Amino acid sequence: MTQTNSSWGGRFAEATDAFVAEFTASIGFDARLYRHDIEGSIAHATMLAKCNVIAEDEKDAIVHGLKEVQNDIENGDMQWSVALEDVHMNVEAALTHKIGIVGKKLHTGRSRNDQIATDIRLYVREEIDHLAAEVTRLQQALITLAQAEANTIMPGFTHLQTAQPVTFGHHLMAWNEMLQRDFERLLDCRKRVNIMPLGAAALAGTTYPIDRSITAELLGFERPTENSLDSVSDRDFAIEFTHVGALIMMHLSRMSEELVLWASAQFDFIDLPDRFCTGSSIMPQKKNPDVPELVRGKTGRVYGHLMSLLTLMKSQPLAYNKDNQEDKEPLFDTIDTLAGSLRAFADMVPHIQAKRDNMELAAAKGYSTATDLADYLVKKGLPFRDAHEVVGESVAFGIKEGKDLSELTLEQLQAFSDLITADVFDVLTLSGSVAARDHLGGTAPNQVKAACERALKKLSER
Amino acid sequence: MTQTNSSWGGRFAEATDAFVAEFTASIGFDARLYRHDIEGSIAHATMLAKCNVIAEDEKDAIVHGLKEVQNDIENGDMQWSVALEDVHMNVEAALTHKIGIVGKKLHTGRSRNDQIATDIRLYVREEIDHLAAEVTRLQQALITLAQAEANTIMPGFTHLQTAQPVTFGHHLMAWNEMLQRDFERLLDCRKRVNIMPLGAAALAGTTYPIDRSITAELLGFERPTENSLDSVSDRDFAIEFTHVGALIMMHLSRMSEELVLWASAQFDFIDLPDRFCTGSSIMPQKKNPDVPELVRGKTGRVYGHLMSLLTLMKSQPLAYNKDNQEDKEPLFDTIDTLAGSLRAFADMVPHIQAKRDNMELAAAKGYSTATDLADYLVKKGLPFRDAHEVVGESVAFGIKEGKDLSELTLEQLQAFSDLITADVFDVLTLSGSVAARDHLGGTAPNQVKAACERALKKLSER
Amino acid sequence: MTQTNSSWGGRFAEATDAFVAEFTASIGFDARLYRHDIEGSIAHATMLAKCNVIAEDEKDAIVHGLKEVQNDIENGDMQWSVALEDVHMNVEAALTHKIGIVGKKLHTGRSRNDQIATDIRLYVREEIDHLAAEVTRLQQALITLAQAEANTIMPGFTHLQTAQPVTFGHHLMAWNEMLQRDFERLLDCRKRVNIMPLGAAALAGTTYPIDRSITAELLGFERPTENSLDSVSDRDFAIEFTHVGALIMMHLSRMSEELVLWASAQFDFIDLPDRFCTGSSIMPQKKNPDVPELVRGKTGRVYGHLMSLLTLMKSQPLAYNKDNQEDKEPLFDTIDTLAGSLRAFADMVPHIQAKRDNMELAAAKGYSTATDLADYLVKKGLPFRDAHEVVGESVAFGIKEGKDLSELTLEQLQAFSDLITADVFDVLTLSGSVAARDHLGGTAPNQVKAACERALKKLSER
Amino acid sequence: MTQTNSSWGGRFAEATDAFVAEFTASIGFDARLYRHDIEGSIAHATMLAKCNVIAEDEKDAIVHGLKEVQNDIENGDMQWSVALEDVHMNVEAALTHKIGIVGKKLHTGRSRNDQIATDIRLYVREEIDHLAAEVTRLQQALITLAQAEANTIMPGFTHLQTAQPVTFGHHLMAWNEMLQRDFERLLDCRKRVNIMPLGAAALAGTTYPIDRSITAELLGFERPTENSLDSVSDRDFAIEFTHVGALIMMHLSRMSEELVLWASAQFDFIDLPDRFCTGSSIMPQKKNPDVPELVRGKTGRVYGHLMSLLTLMKSQPLAYNKDNQEDKEPLFDTIDTLAGSLRAFADMVPHIQAKRDNMELAAAKGYSTATDLADYLVKKGLPFRDAHEVVGESVAFGIKEGKDLSELTLEQLQAFSDLITADVFDVLTLSGSVAARDHLGGTAPNQVKAACERALKKLSER
Repeated sequence: MTQTNSSWGGRFAEATDAFVAEFTASIGFDARLYRHDIEGSIAHATMLAKCNVIAEDEKDAIVHGLKEVQNDIENGDMQWSVALEDVHMNVEAALTHKIGIVGKKLHTGRSRNDQIATDIRLYVREEIDHLAAEVTRLQQALITLAQAEANTIMPGFTHLQTAQPVTFGHHLMAWNEMLQRDFERLLDCRKRVNIMPLGAAALAGTTYPIDRSITAELLGFERPTENSLDSVSDRDFAIEFTHVGALIMMHLSRMSEELVLWASAQFDFIDLPDRFCTGSSIMPQKKNPDVPELVRGKTGRVYGHLMSLLTLMKSQPLAYNKDNQEDKEPLFDTIDTLAGSLRAFADMVPHIQAKRDNMELAAAKGYSTATDLADYLVKKGLPFRDAHEVVGESVAFGIKEGKDLSELTLEQLQAFSDLITADVFDVLTLSGSVAARDHLGGTAPNQVKAACERALKKLSER
Repeated sequence: MTQTNSSWGGRFAEATDAFVAEFTASIGFDARLYRHDIEGSIAHATMLAKCNVIAEDEKDAIVHGLKEVQNDIENGDMQWSVALEDVHMNVEAALTHKIGIVGKKLHTGRSRNDQIATDIRLYVREEIDHLAAEVTRLQQALITLAQAEANTIMPGFTHLQTAQPVTFGHHLMAWNEMLQRDFERLLDCRKRVNIMPLGAAALAGTTYPIDRSITAELLGFERPTENSLDSVSDRDFAIEFTHVGALIMMHLSRMSEELVLWASAQFDFIDLPDRFCTGSSIMPQKKNPDVPELVRGKTGRVYGHLMSLLTLMKSQPLAYNKDNQEDKEPLFDTIDTLAGSLRAFADMVPHIQAKRDNMELAAAKGYSTATDLADYLVKKGLPFRDAHEVVGESVAFGIKEGKDLSELTLEQLQAFSDLITADVFDVLTLSGSVAARDHLGGTAPNQVKAACERALKKLSER
Repeated sequence: MTQTNSSWGGRFAEATDAFVAEFTASIGFDARLYRHDIEGSIAHATMLAKCNVIAEDEKDAIVHGLKEVQNDIENGDMQWSVALEDVHMNVEAALTHKIGIVGKKLHTGRSRNDQIATDIRLYVREEIDHLAAEVTRLQQALITLAQAEANTIMPGFTHLQTAQPVTFGHHLMAWNEMLQRDFERLLDCRKRVNIMPLGAAALAGTTYPIDRSITAELLGFERPTENSLDSVSDRDFAIEFTHVGALIMMHLSRMSEELVLWASAQFDFIDLPDRFCTGSSIMPQKKNPDVPELVRGKTGRVYGHLMSLLTLMKSQPLAYNKDNQEDKEPLFDTIDTLAGSLRAFADMVPHIQAKRDNMELAAAKGYSTATDLADYLVKKGLPFRDAHEVVGESVAFGIKEGKDLSELTLEQLQAFSDLITADVFDVLTLSGSVAARDHLGGTAPNQVKAACERALKKLSER
Repeated sequence: MTQTNSSWGGRFAEATDAFVAEFTASIGFDARLYRHDIEGSIAHATMLAKCNVIAEDEKDAIVHGLKEVQNDIENGDMQWSVALEDVHMNVEAALTHKIGIVGKKLHTGRSRNDQIATDIRLYVREEIDHLAAEVTRLQQALITLAQAEANTIMPGFTHLQTAQPVTFGHHLMAWNEMLQRDFERLLDCRKRVNIMPLGAAALAGTTYPIDRSITAELLGFERPTENSLDSVSDRDFAIEFTHVGALIMMHLSRMSEELVLWASAQFDFIDLPDRFCTGSSIMPQKKNPDVPELVRGKTGRVYGHLMSLLTLMKSQPLAYNKDNQEDKEPLFDTIDTLAGSLRAFADMVPHIQAKRDNMELAAAKGYSTATDLADYLVKKGLPFRDAHEVVGESVAFGIKEGKDLSELTLEQLQAFSDLITADVFDVLTLSGSVAARDHLGGTAPNQVKAACERALKKLSER
């Protein structure tokens, strides 16, 4: 038998079952919130004093005591107790142990329900800032690499079939666009995180003459929440954050898939540095692209957490229910997964080595300039759909002959359309093809360079 | 054997397998995009003419022809063909049938890859506006009801146990807060929807001298996209929209759960109008709250679509892959589910009848003013944690005696603390308890009324 | 205003709202169950007559009438009505229209709650049998192809890096193993589908002296269910079926991924027949592996349905709730998706053309026999971990020299270990490497052929 | 810089990045498999010796050394190393440290790819047996309680509206049916877990003359797997297990929902012992049903893990990829969540106190015997649908009068049908209603008792 938690034991006839105490305790994972819990408590005590709910010297004792508790925790001197259930009761018990009975006044005008909602928001806000910085770091790396590879030609794929030549810089900037949206979503989510539930108390507000705008300002929140019932039960922000995280992981999974493909012997487009790879205990020749593979695998993890949180909140009646304790582990693991994956990518990207010759060679095969031939015919007056057919037949012929379009003779080409003249070979070159897509968003090297400039400018304005 | 689609058949040696043609065709569900497809094509043709890629009279013929096609579709005179695969080819074939060879010029400088991305964005943008209006209508209904019920007392629950008295208006305004966030998320999502991929062509841009800013302006997009590879492969906006929808459904599921509870004989807090309920084919006495139950059930549907889209995009290499065709049905069904569920709620909420007496009676039981007694003791000088224990013991005594706190005698109460005097009974009344939570976000009737005013003001500014 | 459904309208004061009637009706999707609904009703009437609840001639009239209704439906002569809500009421109304008042007796001793549960089980049971046959057909195709390719050497990959040579037949038989488990899971699921809820009535059983074992036998169910409350609320079988479907789709997504890779210019291991591919409206040279891509994309769909159904049932109190109406569309779409995807694969697989030379060439590169060299050294007495290091250094040397292990000279190899002698070149050949993995489950051609035999035998015993 | 893992470092030019080493290591979570890893290694060494791949005394040294390593681990004397990546390399390093160079021979003829697949299967098999025992324990508790409550009448609900009276025992046995299916699914899953991948080596099998049937027998597996590529990549069993777990949690969430409802002041059907509840730090009167709430909340966790694993495996090419490392944490957490939740329920259920009077009182209200009146009329010759209407009107009248059907006078009842005579009041009693549903699966007390007997018999035969 565990001792019943003294914070609520008054009405209870028997102590909590020992296994139940452990099963229902959250201290095993919510201890990580100690810093935000103490920050929130200091602001709360300060507000209580300003509103004359507690005396100034009581506030001083509390604030001083809390800082000592924080010190103890950071020095490893805290004895976390499962019987005390959670981070809030552990911190308060340590405080009361230090400063005596006045410590018990800290909980005036609040409840663990609004306290935990505040703690998580403070924590997530801080982590969003960290993750946004990591996204920026990864974008920086991508843009820098894109600038260096703005002229490098590779095959652009649709359906994993060679489609049209593009530049490697252009491809990297597509990844940058994904991350740009991720960054914006993080900021949009942050707006909804940065609102303060403290003062909602258990569910209905409190009878003490509190001023929630003071606490909100002390904690850097944009404003207090509007409704106490909603305040203690709302976990939208955790779901929205995890959703943003799921999209980030989805994007990283797409980059990973391509890195793994490109590192294969069949593509052989890039080299990844040894220090981001591992080997095989059985096959001595192996050099495995572990980092992208593992990140790709971790995608499911964050998808799962999103589903977990959505399930958690489905059909929950107001206001707080114990179910909500289950919000933390998926959220924390999402944060850790994102932090690790973004770090690994931001560290790795600058060291991706493009094998430019291989890329260009691959682009030169696969009839990648067929569309250019069609456009050439259109400019000579053929409707596009008809030009498409002419080129389709030329390609079929080329496949039969084992030759790319640029390898066919003028006569062979002219057999398909008499609009074709000697200048056709200009549009069948890779560099000509790439340079011709010269408009905003196109793959022409100068467009890619301009896009890099614009992207860097956006980063610099963050 | 189906005829091979003539838009790409040139290089093919055999026709598409009939079952494969049907299996891979999208016309069965993407026909709903016809209006946006035509709108996009008209803007595209207009831009092509402005850029001298096609002649002015060719543009006029195309625009006129497209409008006729739209008319035909809306009059039911369109013959949709599976062999033509999708809405784009069906519309173009109808156009060419009408205006002849010049119709084939419409596809100059674009591809179905950027065309479908544009169509969906136009469609989702319009649907977001519709759904946002429905959210507003539901909020309006909730706030109006909350104003009427600002003084109605009901038990506030945590853990579905009676916690503290709240007002019914306050409870309804908690629902309004959920929807307020949903509205804001819809608008944030709309920003990222409202960007134009057209001009990305197949994946790399086009060799024609197009001006994408013209098309963007004609279609009301904020700007063209920055990268062609990203433009044709990005489905973030569909996922983000479905996520916003999942949160809306989650919120409706929570409201539904409470409506179902409240309509039960055990709670008996509300009456739902007969026309929103159905009966039983076997039990003649039944009146089932079908609408909230069904909406609660539909929550899973949108959660599932979110998971479906996330799975779809996981690990997809650039640029367009056929997988992406699977983005539409989950998206469309999410829109339909949201539209139906929001409409049902917005229609129903104004007719919810509060059974005020039952609500108040329920609040009067269950020791809902126990916290008020604790606060009373704190104000008399007892630390909160000690006051909590005193009240806990009083409640245990009350349970044994079968009496609520307000039914105990002064002497009985004083046995637990000599700080208790006759004025204690003021804080043990429901109206006193509710009125005392008089701060921003609290349940006091005047706070609820003020919150309604603020909320209405926000609606009026939309 | 819609007419209120006359099957339950007695206690209602106002008619159902027209939109609500449509929103809550299921006839739009449950009409597909008509055949099973009628089959169940015929068995129910037969049982009622045997138990003397209705007269023999009443039963005859009902059975005859139901068969006519089925005829009408199959001839397109049925007027489905939304006001009648669902397939049950539509069929019953049609019956009563045909045979008069005695038709109303059919619903004696049952409810729509047990009726729908029975209908779905009959339907899913039939579909499982169909899908199991399609799985078998696909397995048959794979094994046949594996037999033809049992000697074809290709690179085996781990981490998409060349690992060791394997045979293409062996690879195909790995796919067969996945499907073998899918088949077994379908049968395990079928056991739990094939149990009869009819007779549970609304939730508590019925007061008529029915004999549920008669109905169960007539309908081919293994036994009646054990508990009426569970009978009307249980949807485990739908979730379990969808889970089995999710695994099937996952397996098809893995095969699809490989087919798409192999069909790329970079791998170029296979050719897919034109009739399973489509082209591009813009790039005339494209031949896209649409079928595997689309199937890969459809994976998310079934994953989503699984999540949808799990969400649906979470926290549902007993017994039947309207939420359950939402079980059908995810289930039906799962069935359709599986049927289409399996059919497409079973049709396509026999026509996959292995490009054997390309496969073997790829295996010859990438140091795929490095493990064989290590094993060679071990057999000469070196501990495995040391042999691994020796070979790792040889590979590093080979990479520097641009040569595969088999291309190094004996002297070069001996520089890394003096245990190496001229016989080393036997183990460095692909055919030697493959043939050496000669144990149950290994890639040696004779093992693959034996595995094919065993697999065919299993199929023949189904 | 971390030291590069010496098991594969031969070909590498630089050491693994320190963060990458930590990011990619699995020892943080796979150490829990040490016992199964050692068990597998002992069997492997024994087989190698029987096949003369290693000498008998080498085997003895290895086995003895492994047992010492296990002892060290269990005594807390193991130094787990991140640089050694995983449990396999840590154990092998410890072994080699103990017994010298011969320890390196253990890895002959296997790879970490088949080793981890074997370890997880051994582990999951053991955990399935544990969980099946817990399911049995919970079923035992439910059946025992159902026997004690076989005559207790409560309202049966559909749509959370009072539908018909049922017995509490019958309701509990509905829960038992859910768990019965869960048990069967665990066993079906176990069949597919209990197959041995060892010997597949890295992906293609091994060149050593191993006999996999020996190892399979030593480890209690039913048989070796059929295909080496499939063996190292298959994670179906983990997904299937997690799916079975998701259904168990779904069932527990449904029980939890009802327990929470029943413990509310509004239902007040049961009392949960104090030791399975906790209180509130702010509201002294609260006694919260924490255990069922928390279990309900944990449902999302397992749903999420299922989605995580499905996502993980989607589109993975053969054979092993690093992604698969991510299979373990969702699987382990599923096991822990199931073990905790089942234990909490199995401990709690025997102590649920039914408040029989409250249950019966609730059943007596709400027109729960209306169906009985309809059946009564049918037996007097009215078609069911007409009887339904008559009763519907009676109920409407009763609602207006504020009286239950049994409280109406005979004359009042006869106003709706002249078939009603004085014997009608027999069928309007609760006990009469319940007793009348006297067929297999019905709620009649004697049926419930018989069902309990059958269920106990099944348990005793496990």
